[in-house]
Amino acid sequence: MTDFQTQLSGIAKAIEEELDAYLAAARLGGPGTPPDRLVAAMRHGSLNGGKRLRPLLVRQAAAVFGMDGAASLQAALAVELVHCYSLIHDDLPAMDDDDLRRGQPTVHKAFDEATAILAGDSLLTHAFALLAEEKCHPDAVVRVRLVAELAAGSGAGGMAGGQMRDIEGESQGFSEGEIALMQAMKTGALIRASVRMGAILGGADEKALAALTAYGEAAGRAFQLADDILDVTASTEAMGKATGKDAAAGKQTLVSRIGVDAATRHLGETVTEAIAALAGFGPQADGLRETARYFAARAH
Amino acid sequence: MTDFQTQLSGIAKAIEEELDAYLAAARLGGPGTPPDRLVAAMRHGSLNGGKRLRPLLVRQAAAVFGMDGAASLQAALAVELVHCYSLIHDDLPAMDDDDLRRGQPTVHKAFDEATAILAGDSLLTHAFALLAEEKCHPDAVVRVRLVAELAAGSGAGGMAGGQMRDIEGESQGFSEGEIALMQAMKTGALIRASVRMGAILGGADEKALAALTAYGEAAGRAFQLADDILDVTASTEAMGKATGKDAAAGKQTLVSRIGVDAATRHLGETVTEAIAALAGFGPQADGLRETARYFAARAH
Repeated sequence: MTDFQTQLSGIAKAIEEELDAYLAAARLGGPGTPPDRLVAAMRHGSLNGGKRLRPLLVRQAAAVFGMDGAASLQAALAVELVHCYSLIHDDLPAMDDDDLRRGQPTVHKAFDEATAILAGDSLLTHAFALLAEEKCHPDAVVRVRLVAELAAGSGAGGMAGGQMRDIEGESQGFSEGEIALMQAMKTGALIRASVRMGAILGGADEKALAALTAYGEAAGRAFQLADDILDVTASTEAMGKATGKDAAAGKQTLVSRIGVDAATRHLGETVTEAIAALAGFGPQADGLRETARYFAARAH
Repeated sequence: MTDFQTQLSGIAKAIEEELDAYLAAARLGGPGTPPDRLVAAMRHGSLNGGKRLRPLLVRQAAAVFGMDGAASLQAALAVELVHCYSLIHDDLPAMDDDDLRRGQPTVHKAFDEATAILAGDSLLTHAFALLAEEKCHPDAVVRVRLVAELAAGSGAGGMAGGQMRDIEGESQGFSEGEIALMQAMKTGALIRASVRMGAILGGADEKALAALTAYGEAAGRAFQLADDILDVTASTEAMGKATGKDAAAGKQTLVSRIGVDAATRHLGETVTEAIAALAGFGPQADGLRETARYFAARAH
């Protein structure tokens, strides 16, 4: 395995273990007792072999400042809970209406719609619970900054707003700029937040945070470009989810606008831009550099 | 007006003004721009003349420790956003399938299901954003405690778990104990959290927090009892939402189990219990006492 693949399988294993331990009635806590069915749906929607790229970005950004993976793991888990909630809600019949996710029935198919809505709501809520715990970081000032960052990345001006724009785009024409804004919010905002949360955990100063934000924004664009290219070029089997759906749903992507070849060139430029943003950092930023290169490689 | 009604109309006005100011694209923030449709749906689901009882409880619990209403307003707003998100999601076709809320079309009727899901998700997310802001409280330690409290009250072991139990109860028999647990989670947990958040804001010590928690738990039971009694006895017009629906939906409440007369007596006892929990506090706890009495009075 390449060093990148070792890192990716390492974080995937750590996150699966943390999810498995956290998503249990006793650990979730609260004044009552989490019902079995709700916990099972939360587990189904998250313990599903995801790549855990956002947790990897949290870890790699924290590593730029010398923080080890164990110290950034709880914040990484919080980001992953938000990502999993967004997939559960996006898959709902009223949204993208997907039956399949990573080769398994989506939560509303395996359970029902009401349970899927509540499982998503709960994963989102518990992401913030995780960030509030002292285990996340000993300094409460850091913890509230993480809460603010995750909320900004996933709220109306971030991921949820991007999903709204995506749905609106199915029924109305979008300019290239509008597609870029939608994607920067829908996918980019949480990737940007992941990188920034790692930097905040690591104690980045303003200048370092700005550089990592630029990396995160470029990395988010690269990730989305790769995903849109794969939706056109890959098979359902290889992706573990329905492909070719964007075009069928009338979804507008940069790939549908400029074609696969131009999008692939644009992806290469965007990865170069992401890596350039890290020019001020030494080998401790190699993890982030490799992840950016992976975004380009996966589209081939 | 009684003093209680003055307090209730005062907090309602303050919360409406704060909601109006906060639910605007510029104030919501994020790396992108919140889409107009999403902001409109968030406003529709929250700027609707709610009684704002939970914000009142935050304010009244903080007032026990001498904190004025302005200082607790941001935390009160956060609790109200969570309450409004829960109503939007509970009204969805996959959940309670309600077309009417406070005399107005529910969010999924006024907009559509996808928009309602996203509006609820966003209100929940921004509740935590509000608690993370320095404006909420100058001490970050207090702010992370508020985040933890709100998450515990609204997550899988609180409100969301209670809604799951409520849905499960429609298709399976519930004991009185199971009904009580469901209601303590679905409605009680956020009322309990409201009181505790006010106490935390005010700097309550362990003993005071325990007393106010006991008050909050009894107040939550009283509120739910009054609501269930009203569902049987009041008209749709008086409530501004469909009534008699619990029985029609096969929902199990203590009222359906023990009857209106016994439930009304039980309500009186529960209000007495709530007020008894405040025995250690002086006139600064009169607001909380009056609110408990109001829960009994509204069922008549």
